[in-house]
Amino acid sequence: MPAFNPLIEKLSPPPVPSVAAWGRAYDGSRGPLIDLSQAVPGYPAHPDMLKLLGETGSSKAFTGYGPIEGEAELRTAYAAHVSEVYGAGIGLRNIHVTSGCNQAFVCAAMTVAGPGNTVLMTEPFYFNHETTLAMMGVKTAFVACDAANGFLPDLVGLEAAITGEVRALALVSPNNPTGAIYPPSLLEAIFKLCRNKGIWLILDETYRDFLPTADQVPHALFSLDGWEDTLISLYSFSKSFCIPGHRLGAITAGPVAVEQIAKIMDNLQICAPRAAQAAVAKALPLLADWREENRQEIGRRADALKAVMRSVNDWKLDAIGAYFAFVRHPFPGRSSAEVAEKLARQAGVICIPGAYFGESQQNYLRFAFANADVPTIGLLRERLQNFSLS
Amino acid sequence: MPAFNPLIEKLSPPPVPSVAAWGRAYDGSRGPLIDLSQAVPGYPAHPDMLKLLGETGSSKAFTGYGPIEGEAELRTAYAAHVSEVYGAGIGLRNIHVTSGCNQAFVCAAMTVAGPGNTVLMTEPFYFNHETTLAMMGVKTAFVACDAANGFLPDLVGLEAAITGEVRALALVSPNNPTGAIYPPSLLEAIFKLCRNKGIWLILDETYRDFLPTADQVPHALFSLDGWEDTLISLYSFSKSFCIPGHRLGAITAGPVAVEQIAKIMDNLQICAPRAAQAAVAKALPLLADWREENRQEIGRRADALKAVMRSVNDWKLDAIGAYFAFVRHPFPGRSSAEVAEKLARQAGVICIPGAYFGESQQNYLRFAFANADVPTIGLLRERLQNFSLS
Ligand SMILES: Cc1ncc(COP(=O)(O)O)c(C=O)c1O
Ligand SMILES: Cc1ncc(COP(=O)(O)O)c(C=O)c1O
Repeated sequence: MPAFNPLIEKLSPPPVPSVAAWGRAYDGSRGPLIDLSQAVPGYPAHPDMLKLLGETGSSKAFTGYGPIEGEAELRTAYAAHVSEVYGAGIGLRNIHVTSGCNQAFVCAAMTVAGPGNTVLMTEPFYFNHETTLAMMGVKTAFVACDAANGFLPDLVGLEAAITGEVRALALVSPNNPTGAIYPPSLLEAIFKLCRNKGIWLILDETYRDFLPTADQVPHALFSLDGWEDTLISLYSFSKSFCIPGHRLGAITAGPVAVEQIAKIMDNLQICAPRAAQAAVAKALPLLADWREENRQEIGRRADALKAVMRSVNDWKLDAIGAYFAFVRHPFPGRSSAEVAEKLARQAGVICIPGAYFGESQQNYLRFAFANADVPTIGLLRERLQNFSLS
Repeated sequence: MPAFNPLIEKLSPPPVPSVAAWGRAYDGSRGPLIDLSQAVPGYPAHPDMLKLLGETGSSKAFTGYGPIEGEAELRTAYAAHVSEVYGAGIGLRNIHVTSGCNQAFVCAAMTVAGPGNTVLMTEPFYFNHETTLAMMGVKTAFVACDAANGFLPDLVGLEAAITGEVRALALVSPNNPTGAIYPPSLLEAIFKLCRNKGIWLILDETYRDFLPTADQVPHALFSLDGWEDTLISLYSFSKSFCIPGHRLGAITAGPVAVEQIAKIMDNLQICAPRAAQAAVAKALPLLADWREENRQEIGRRADALKAVMRSVNDWKLDAIGAYFAFVRHPFPGRSSAEVAEKLARQAGVICIPGAYFGESQQNYLRFAFANADVPTIGLLRERLQNFSLS
């Protein structure tokens, strides 16, 4: 057989399906399987969302190729939404629609870094960011985030890590895997650091609709001088609208960056699926209240998990925020994959091993608690309490 | 502003939108605009296709993340379809679904070639193949295809071009831009050359449903020894089902290659849009007769274009096949972009300049004649006859 690209060959198989396989080996003896693995909304899409998707799907209007940058209707609606959320003046020309936020990251990273360049990330990291850069031949460097500091990066460490090779800093806030919510002041300081150093800041805000407080402004970066020349912000419609299967995300950036991204998107897939774009353009204003209810519901799930974890010996909730908790298991020295696999097979709880987010996270498991309702989260107490590594 | 990735910065803007802009400058004085630019089906999707898309779009079943490789239903249906078309034994494990065929090419190319490797292409080439490789830092080499040889590559030239740096040969048959249909015997000889040389053959078969003869087998490669270790075949549902806006394509390859591709797709966008996959799985067998009618209709359009071109002085139809014709304009020494722009602005005919498919194609224009019905194609006679480069 002729050779494969070694950059691809040495990637591990995608993590989520392999973790799901552990769950299938669970015999049900402890009760129903509790799935805290993939970050999927644990409640269904709104009926109006489905109705809109049905209407646009069956419409002739969206069968042809669409504009590369996205449907004008969605770009306008999303620009208005971003303007409102951040209190900023964002227009259609700042928006590029993508097929989900992973693709938004591919576009953003490729826009600013080529093979041999370096992108700086925080560790623990979102694994698809790391594997995306690896497969493109982009080098990665990491700034460790301490549990003691709530898994937030520290400015001094960041500044020291921005060497001449670094073209961009990639952050995730609210964070995957830790859940950590970066305070606006920290984000502003990081933005200014990037601006001073002349590097790009790529900020993945997939989980920004799940902040603990209503109408909390995630950050003020879109109002800062020169944001269009420094910031590329990424968003996913997957979680907030419960439609990951329809593959929709968006990038907010300067118009010059949007032009670069369009060249990439034309090659990657010409345009994002159009029917879903048209449906979400309508749903964005329409489902605002429903999204607010979901935000509150996920807050209750966070509270439920906190209560459970307080009552479980030896397991430590080192971080919890929007959507995720980063949990320290009571088996130091054992690999996180071993703990997660046995927890799945024996106790029927699937979650992602900490080491998938960085080799040094062996003591952790990521719980995507937003996937499970409050009663299900309650079941964790017994499952964890009775679990031992045999 | 911090630097962009120079590989992206030096890409030209996407060609199709810029050509469309020339058409908007046409004043209508010669009659309706004739759009022969983008390769889009000139007839609407079947009502049953729209109905299915509406049903799956509004279904809860497809809102979640789906399998990376694609819906089992579509992989099975498409494997059965490929088996039938080629008289071969293709199974689900040979199929990876993508968001269109451009993405299929990204996946195939990245699977076999990394930054610094070389992929060999024929010239004229499909521009997105060239720009895709350029943006990934993959080097390209070209084998020129002569008009005198029907724009087919010649084996001796191909063999000489397969140097030690070349990891894959990328072909398009039926060809974009020339329309040339590679005979099965030529494809078999090329396949064997690639197998002997230990390189991959990537074959983009986006237009294979538009061959001039009913039930024509495009090639016998899927029945040859070792095909899974040499061939990666690409397909698009955009043209045959008239649903480019829904973004769906597929790769047929060996299971080991499919595994590599899944790692790339997980990063690129996790999975292709699911509702469209489910709808097309049903439509594949259902709309076979309708696709056959369209094939015949496009044959009639080809005949109409041949008749027109015979009666137009100085313009030469150097190649015509499935979907496209490669037309020699009567202004040697003038740039194809100048000719195409004026043809659009003055005569209301939009098409793609030959040079977009390779610098040495300045004497050509690509007519995507499949976009226009027979009466519209008839209008070309007068438009071309009366056109002069002022
Ligand atoms: C941080 C982060 N970015 C991006 C994504 C991908 O989202 P999408 O479904 O929009 O591709 C995820 C999904 O889990 C995520 O956690
Ligand atoms: C040769 C070729 N490959 C791929 C594509 C892209 O097709 P899709 O819409 O499936 O991405 C096209 C579209 O014009 C094409 O001509």
